[in-house]
Amino acid sequence: MKLHVSSDLHYSFQPGTGAVVSVHAATSPDQTVISESLEIDPLPELVFDPADARGERRFRGEFSGDVRIRYEAVVDNGARSLLPSAATRHAWPDLPTEALVFLLPSRYCSSDRFISFAEKTFGTIPEGGAMVQAVLSWLYENIEYAFGISSSDTTAEHTFVERKGVCRDFTHLGITLCRALNIPARAVSAYAMGLEPQDFHAVFEVYLENAWWLVDPTGLVPVENLVRIGVGRDAADIAFLSTTSPCSLIWQTVKVLPAV
Amino acid sequence: MKLHVSSDLHYSFQPGTGAVVSVHAATSPDQTVISESLEIDPLPELVFDPADARGERRFRGEFSGDVRIRYEAVVDNGARSLLPSAATRHAWPDLPTEALVFLLPSRYCSSDRFISFAEKTFGTIPEGGAMVQAVLSWLYENIEYAFGISSSDTTAEHTFVERKGVCRDFTHLGITLCRALNIPARAVSAYAMGLEPQDFHAVFEVYLENAWWLVDPTGLVPVENLVRIGVGRDAADIAFLSTTSPCSLIWQTVKVLPAV
Amino acid sequence: MKLHVSSDLHYSFQPGTGAVVSVHAATSPDQTVISESLEIDPLPELVFDPADARGERRFRGEFSGDVRIRYEAVVDNGARSLLPSAATRHAWPDLPTEALVFLLPSRYCSSDRFISFAEKTFGTIPEGGAMVQAVLSWLYENIEYAFGISSSDTTAEHTFVERKGVCRDFTHLGITLCRALNIPARAVSAYAMGLEPQDFHAVFEVYLENAWWLVDPTGLVPVENLVRIGVGRDAADIAFLSTTSPCSLIWQTVKVLPAV
Amino acid sequence: MKLHVSSDLHYSFQPGTGAVVSVHAATSPDQTVISESLEIDPLPELVFDPADARGERRFRGEFSGDVRIRYEAVVDNGARSLLPSAATRHAWPDLPTEALVFLLPSRYCSSDRFISFAEKTFGTIPEGGAMVQAVLSWLYENIEYAFGISSSDTTAEHTFVERKGVCRDFTHLGITLCRALNIPARAVSAYAMGLEPQDFHAVFEVYLENAWWLVDPTGLVPVENLVRIGVGRDAADIAFLSTTSPCSLIWQTVKVLPAV
Repeated sequence: MKLHVSSDLHYSFQPGTGAVVSVHAATSPDQTVISESLEIDPLPELVFDPADARGERRFRGEFSGDVRIRYEAVVDNGARSLLPSAATRHAWPDLPTEALVFLLPSRYCSSDRFISFAEKTFGTIPEGGAMVQAVLSWLYENIEYAFGISSSDTTAEHTFVERKGVCRDFTHLGITLCRALNIPARAVSAYAMGLEPQDFHAVFEVYLENAWWLVDPTGLVPVENLVRIGVGRDAADIAFLSTTSPCSLIWQTVKVLPAV
Repeated sequence: MKLHVSSDLHYSFQPGTGAVVSVHAATSPDQTVISESLEIDPLPELVFDPADARGERRFRGEFSGDVRIRYEAVVDNGARSLLPSAATRHAWPDLPTEALVFLLPSRYCSSDRFISFAEKTFGTIPEGGAMVQAVLSWLYENIEYAFGISSSDTTAEHTFVERKGVCRDFTHLGITLCRALNIPARAVSAYAMGLEPQDFHAVFEVYLENAWWLVDPTGLVPVENLVRIGVGRDAADIAFLSTTSPCSLIWQTVKVLPAV
Repeated sequence: MKLHVSSDLHYSFQPGTGAVVSVHAATSPDQTVISESLEIDPLPELVFDPADARGERRFRGEFSGDVRIRYEAVVDNGARSLLPSAATRHAWPDLPTEALVFLLPSRYCSSDRFISFAEKTFGTIPEGGAMVQAVLSWLYENIEYAFGISSSDTTAEHTFVERKGVCRDFTHLGITLCRALNIPARAVSAYAMGLEPQDFHAVFEVYLENAWWLVDPTGLVPVENLVRIGVGRDAADIAFLSTTSPCSLIWQTVKVLPAV
Repeated sequence: MKLHVSSDLHYSFQPGTGAVVSVHAATSPDQTVISESLEIDPLPELVFDPADARGERRFRGEFSGDVRIRYEAVVDNGARSLLPSAATRHAWPDLPTEALVFLLPSRYCSSDRFISFAEKTFGTIPEGGAMVQAVLSWLYENIEYAFGISSSDTTAEHTFVERKGVCRDFTHLGITLCRALNIPARAVSAYAMGLEPQDFHAVFEVYLENAWWLVDPTGLVPVENLVRIGVGRDAADIAFLSTTSPCSLIWQTVKVLPAV
């Protein structure tokens, strides 16, 4: 599908605040950036980091005072495939080196503590694809989508206990359960068409049968409505804005529409 | 049943260590202490606190160097009743004042975070007694009794995630789920016949239909084989030994046998 | 000083919500309630618990829909003394039984983990009163009073790391450090004259030289401007409103003025 | 200095356990591997991952039953320089892309929560090198090297509260404080000559003035006695052995001696 995505961030920064901004659509095998534009007002000197292995593109600089950052792009994600139930799980010796780190526990995803639960609940499912689908069904049945329960401190363990959360929490718990099943899983920030209210979305990817497959653990957005931005071990890695000092939101809008 | 209980604690204390010792069998309506003896060598000056509302008896003093504390008693717990499925849950206005504190979250029992899970899993069971029995069955089916996973830092949340623990962990999670269901629940330290290896045991009590009912969440010991020692909000309150400075174990034995 | 205190709580409850309300000024040796009134609209059947050992008075009942609870009192706290530097710390054998529980760690106050820090920082101060004053100075110098950092999940450990918080957080960290120094300490909810914005206040008490002494760890309110409401092991125990189901605030005001 | 390092791991694995082993000395600009040997008995099929950006070399395979892994090498680390006090801290736009991830909080290093403390304690020190040295001095003065306090669950926050720990804990807290000061910092596993008892060691590196500088936060081992093995965001990333199922230690030895 061709999607028109845009984000418009308006923040107030203390003088000389270092900031990393991650709002560009990724240039990855499963999506093509047809056109894009970036406007920053006022414009500081910027460094554009080279795209990482997964096509994530970030830039950084020193910001001061009120700054507005507007990004727009038309993206075609027509090359994206749906995770098939039959996709097989790899044994460790067969995983690519770069997938290994996504098996490790991370700040919000303490997968090492979930091994008993994951094995007992999902361990007898024969294929990796069906295993991940069972994890997604479990999330759908057991976790309620609810605002105001979680914060940026909320871990997969908290969500597993409290049974409520937002996209970030579903993503952390989904990643955690997959890693506990020895399936590499990583967090993805995305533009998402049809999300209410419109905002950046957090989803995740699993590595099965020689490929990364995108899934939305909230079940709110079909994968063809997603445009990938950044990839990381968990949400801490894929913030659209990280800064060296606290900054304050003035306003922010995110929009995703079908591109004509 | 009449039980002969004994504990023999041998510890090394730094000079002038304040210590509270809680090894006496409680003198409570559901158990009678027929005879008992206490020997401490060397014997410091001791203060015996009056028995609390539940019959718990503790003593304290300043200990220095190697100290041996031997307690022995014959106890009849023949007055204890088993929790009936039909026992009713109280509405708040009907609870006795002293039960209210056992509805609150405590250090190891963050019951406020388990409300969604508890309501969804047990909330439709009509009677309080059956509700508690369902909690016990859930623990039995989902938590594995295992040494070496948990420590004195382990909370009910950890055990709920890791699905493994010892008597203390079963007790904390059981208490937490009951409180989340608005059933007062409190931790009980006990002598337990038939426990392997023999040691102090942690169990809990629930308040239903005008009475406290003792249950063993590990399912290892029938309630007629238990002799209650102390009662508290969670395990932190019912340690058999609390001290103002670290002390070291030399050895310790606990024994429970049928009294002839 | 004679103070006129009032609180006006307007909440919306789900049908049949059990609630415990703790807004009455305590009737304690260090303060006298000269007159008071309570209005609840609509008025459910209520149970008034007897005053606890410290004079705390609570009531409870089942509330449904919009309810307004207005409490007003004139209180004389003229009998309250200031903590003297020379107040002595008790050895364990000399503490009254009822003070012992306030030496134990509790949910938000894991004093057992702070022993090294407390001993190193305050351990050489000879008298208990001066020790507590040093704890209060340390809080004043190292913790910034700031809104929006902490929540009802914030523990003394969080505040010790983040170095920011509100009255509840100062209270938890102050209690924790005192207990780590073997000084019994307990949380107190209070009406406070001069607090900006006006709200319920959290302070604490320490047990030294045969008495409980009230202190305000934020340094914002002199003790003669405080009217004690409730006492507990930490803030979880002294909420002005605890309920069996979530309820929503409509509005709430707290006022404290000099009584003519 | 030329060092002769060796490790001899003897473990028992459940059938078909996936394992990643990281015991090879890194082939990095600051150390040269002169000779080395690896013996595994019995020998499974292995995959050797290519050295990562920092020269870390790992291998993996499926292990079953009793397996012994012996690694030996002679390494020259003569090219390593000591961190100078005057080394300057980079502004964000000037950092290399690959250093950015080492500014982010990670599982055991919640640097975002330490900003107030770090700024207040170290923030006025003008140069990056002196800032890191002040962090190391602070660790030396405030944290006691002690076994038996920490576990693999222990975070920098725990160590900051408890003020005790082992090399892993010193490393986590040191990394955390540096990141809170906007200095990239990463965990390093190492062979260390002179460590008592001999074992793998955890140290860290900071990025200042266009280079990574190795430091030992325990102060136990001079950097010329260290041989780097692996690099990661915190200790979770640099385990010498990670497995898909629990395995049991039979025995393990680590040795580091001057090479003749």
